[in-house]
Amino acid sequence: MADASPEGDVAPGLMTERLTDEWGFFIRSRRAFEKFRSPYQAVEVHDSEFGKLFRLDGHFMTSEKDEFFYHENLVHPAAITHPSPERALIVGGGDGGSAEELLKYPSLKSVTLAEIDLAVVDVARKYLASVHRGALDDPRLTLKIGDGFEFVRASREQYDLIVLDLTDAGGPSTALYTPEFYAACAARLSPVGAMTLHIASPVAHPQRIRDSLAALRTAFPVVTPYLTSVPLYGGLWMMAMCSTTLDPRQLTSMEVDRRLTRRGIGNLAYYNGDMHRAALALPNFIRALVA
Amino acid sequence: MADASPEGDVAPGLMTERLTDEWGFFIRSRRAFEKFRSPYQAVEVHDSEFGKLFRLDGHFMTSEKDEFFYHENLVHPAAITHPSPERALIVGGGDGGSAEELLKYPSLKSVTLAEIDLAVVDVARKYLASVHRGALDDPRLTLKIGDGFEFVRASREQYDLIVLDLTDAGGPSTALYTPEFYAACAARLSPVGAMTLHIASPVAHPQRIRDSLAALRTAFPVVTPYLTSVPLYGGLWMMAMCSTTLDPRQLTSMEVDRRLTRRGIGNLAYYNGDMHRAALALPNFIRALVA
Repeated sequence: MADASPEGDVAPGLMTERLTDEWGFFIRSRRAFEKFRSPYQAVEVHDSEFGKLFRLDGHFMTSEKDEFFYHENLVHPAAITHPSPERALIVGGGDGGSAEELLKYPSLKSVTLAEIDLAVVDVARKYLASVHRGALDDPRLTLKIGDGFEFVRASREQYDLIVLDLTDAGGPSTALYTPEFYAACAARLSPVGAMTLHIASPVAHPQRIRDSLAALRTAFPVVTPYLTSVPLYGGLWMMAMCSTTLDPRQLTSMEVDRRLTRRGIGNLAYYNGDMHRAALALPNFIRALVA
Repeated sequence: MADASPEGDVAPGLMTERLTDEWGFFIRSRRAFEKFRSPYQAVEVHDSEFGKLFRLDGHFMTSEKDEFFYHENLVHPAAITHPSPERALIVGGGDGGSAEELLKYPSLKSVTLAEIDLAVVDVARKYLASVHRGALDDPRLTLKIGDGFEFVRASREQYDLIVLDLTDAGGPSTALYTPEFYAACAARLSPVGAMTLHIASPVAHPQRIRDSLAALRTAFPVVTPYLTSVPLYGGLWMMAMCSTTLDPRQLTSMEVDRRLTRRGIGNLAYYNGDMHRAALALPNFIRALVA
């Protein structure tokens, strides 16, 4: 999830992602399972040290072995802060990883997944079973293939949780990084509801963090940036939870653990009460960045 | 700080570091200021997006722009947990970055820096003033050029803090990753004292984490692994604090902030009371790894 490589991959067999023009990382492709162009973007699935690895427009999206860093952190801080989420909307997220995390909540009655690109869902069904673990075929899930902005604008539903599980701005998701889209999402959030999204690297993309938070603050009274690490995105990565009333800082570590137990959510590779609080702690340079 | 690249840099002008055989990262060299072989290792200084960037044997060591991630996290959790550190020993650390963090403590009366390679100190003096900020010439600092193991074995001093600021095992520091060396360090620690060191990436090097913690636990009753992120090392990185009596978990976030204020330590880019606690929080898969 970084700037498009101006030069493509740096060496044969190495998949490259640039965080900036001069800094990036690479993973060797052991084999390409898929490499095609959908109507929206370039789609790739490779075998790699990270297991099956999924790319869009040359950007690493998710992999079997590290998907939990991204999906657990995108979903659980908001879902656990909500007292009892019943209805959720995911915009993007066609790989099913966010849906899988949401569906762990027994209170969840419906998840609507609005994904623009059917090819992403198809590829996930074929290769990424260990990411979605059947969530794409869960009876509580409704798949809407189409433009996310149009879907949100036309919707009359109220959602307890909205998860923006998007590619970076630049590709088909560009319109979903605007105050207009955030306002449309805010209008679809129930009075006690929260939206989460990933933003950018605080080290490589400080301006993107500033711009995103400014846009989010036009639409939501409470915007809480938090910090995690996603190996496949190159390290430290910021996310944010946005709400009218909910703030993840309301929960102690013990309360998070209590809720995880009460809601029967085990089998997490990353998230726990301590990590909920740790994600909210910010290094001094990031405090200054998000102020 | 990862495995030596089996193939060297992947493309001309790109400095590469491999976390594993198939996963790594790169930074463009804008210009090489130095590239020579000392009696111990290959030494390089480059200009880069990270400012001046220092490499040993092809491994990224430190850079002007991200040095605070590593040095603040290596030093402050232990130094702030100690009630009043007066005498410190650094093994390695010839760039002066750890010395600079230690010398921020007004109680600190002496820092001994035992570095095997004078070339590292020379290069730091010439290029890395913004890393050591004069610490290498501080009157409280004593520079001992020589083998770290020999120095510790021959020493009769007691240190309140020992900082192992080493290259990864494989080069000249290999003997400093052994139970024998840890026992020698433990013998030089004052009754209320702590040793800190960096270990490895919990994602790329889980076995190195297990082995290091097992070795440390042979020499220290209290071994506290903690987690940080070092962009120049490729993301998540584990460190540990080792002691007979001191445990960084003894301090609340507020107590850390109080001590920072009372000791007059401002101007930190990363470390604060919240981050002290956050570093001690471990994702579930790392809890299992360090158990």
